[in-house]
Amino acid sequence: MSVDIYFAANPDLWPDYATPLRDALREAGVEAELLETPPRDPAAVDYIIYSPDGVIEDFSPYTGCKAVLNLWAGVEKIVNNPTLTQPLCRMVDYGLTEGMVEYVTGHVLRYHLGLDALLAAQNGTWNQEPPPLARDRKVAVLGLGALGRACADALARLNFNVTGWSRTPRDQSQITCHAGECGLVQTLTEAEILVLLLPHTPLTESLLNAERLAQLPRGAVVINPGRGALIDDEALIAALDSGHVAHATLDVFRTEPLPAAHPFWAHPRVTVTPHIAAETRPASAARVIAQNILRGETGLPFLHQVDPGQGY
Amino acid sequence: MSVDIYFAANPDLWPDYATPLRDALREAGVEAELLETPPRDPAAVDYIIYSPDGVIEDFSPYTGCKAVLNLWAGVEKIVNNPTLTQPLCRMVDYGLTEGMVEYVTGHVLRYHLGLDALLAAQNGTWNQEPPPLARDRKVAVLGLGALGRACADALARLNFNVTGWSRTPRDQSQITCHAGECGLVQTLTEAEILVLLLPHTPLTESLLNAERLAQLPRGAVVINPGRGALIDDEALIAALDSGHVAHATLDVFRTEPLPAAHPFWAHPRVTVTPHIAAETRPASAARVIAQNILRGETGLPFLHQVDPGQGY
Repeated sequence: MSVDIYFAANPDLWPDYATPLRDALREAGVEAELLETPPRDPAAVDYIIYSPDGVIEDFSPYTGCKAVLNLWAGVEKIVNNPTLTQPLCRMVDYGLTEGMVEYVTGHVLRYHLGLDALLAAQNGTWNQEPPPLARDRKVAVLGLGALGRACADALARLNFNVTGWSRTPRDQSQITCHAGECGLVQTLTEAEILVLLLPHTPLTESLLNAERLAQLPRGAVVINPGRGALIDDEALIAALDSGHVAHATLDVFRTEPLPAAHPFWAHPRVTVTPHIAAETRPASAARVIAQNILRGETGLPFLHQVDPGQGY
Repeated sequence: MSVDIYFAANPDLWPDYATPLRDALREAGVEAELLETPPRDPAAVDYIIYSPDGVIEDFSPYTGCKAVLNLWAGVEKIVNNPTLTQPLCRMVDYGLTEGMVEYVTGHVLRYHLGLDALLAAQNGTWNQEPPPLARDRKVAVLGLGALGRACADALARLNFNVTGWSRTPRDQSQITCHAGECGLVQTLTEAEILVLLLPHTPLTESLLNAERLAQLPRGAVVINPGRGALIDDEALIAALDSGHVAHATLDVFRTEPLPAAHPFWAHPRVTVTPHIAAETRPASAARVIAQNILRGETGLPFLHQVDPGQGY
């Protein structure tokens, strides 16, 4: 049994992924032909590997395709494609998760320890003001998917007082969890450090708007490594200007690269990072793809399959 | 039931501890009167809070005292007092260890993520260079006492590739451990990030001298929250000037406060923090005291009770 896999992701990715995919498929014991160019017979394709800016717009000719496997965690650019009737799987890459945990933990500790002020105070003044302990610092993580859960867990292991919020109730042993609209208000009103790790859906579009920013305690800080569209940019700038929000570290934006003229770049209370919090790494992502193909071929349910009704 | 607690520690500590102790006792549900001045009836005192330079020399009048609770970990100045017949408890402050873990983890992640460069690059240039994963970053922790072990464990939980070194061999499941002089060379030659958490003894005086700094890989960084005397200051400055050591974050110094004229302050490759990595914190120490009083009042054995035969 050999499966035909069409690499229909952005062609720029092919050089990075070809060898890791072949290695991972061989490791998983999947005999496969990996196609870089459009197949003569689309109906014969068993699996499609995809990414934003991938080369398929019409999925309907791929009548034999058992799954579309996304190289990215975010699927907002593909989930509403009406021609996509095949199962769609998101990427949940351990490299992605680990990178995100490191970014989020690093920036939470940066705020917690007051590193920016320490780095700026190299002026010979011995001013001992130790920060509180992490257990006395309230951190809220919005979004308890794979990335949000991993970050919340890592922060809880460092003793931060972590609250998680998700649209639908979740059970997460180590942290306090809230859900729904009421839960969001409760979560925001207590968040000294707010981390956004929600997917971008119609329900989360501009979730952090003027009203919700006002619910944060004065002096709160915002870290957004999730999706740019979770934030109403103008409302955030107004909240930063007034000092209600003390600082923001933003890794994702509505337009990327963030235009040089965007006020975030020059704002004294904003740190822009260039979408580096987490990226899919070819070696680990290829293993996830190979595992899912093996599952498909052996009749197991796919991992990380997207529910089109929910959008993620 | 109300208990009488006599604060017989160094009176200079009273302003820092009065409110935290009252808060912690209330949190623990202990109804108590906290006395700052010598009680009219010593026999009525239920608990004594003590510290080096405390105000009691003769403990014999305190016939009703159920325990003497020390605010410090060290009890060498009191354990041999012949009038002390009451149980004596050391302070084991979780705040000290937690604060150290937070400081070390924060600064390791700061170096790992390249935060200083990111903060300096708010110039509109979208320059995506994600850091490696923590699993591909070698961190060495010198000293595997309570603080070193806790930091090494926390870094290992974040997937850092951690090596620990101690003078005598230690077994630490999560990390690679080296010991002795040969082990030190091996540890230093691989350390991208070096954390010093050794005690200051004749054997560790100027441990990080010119020879050992030269054993670090070029571009290594040094974090010293341990003891100032572990480092030969001039040798470190020479290694920073040459770029062999890329950066140092120093929290402890041979003279504290670090004199304003010391070259560390102005060195572009040094971050000075004013001995804030870890300290006994009134809030956490007060909770430990309150918990021990609650244990005494409910018939549970005291935590951290000193064995006078052993002296600790």
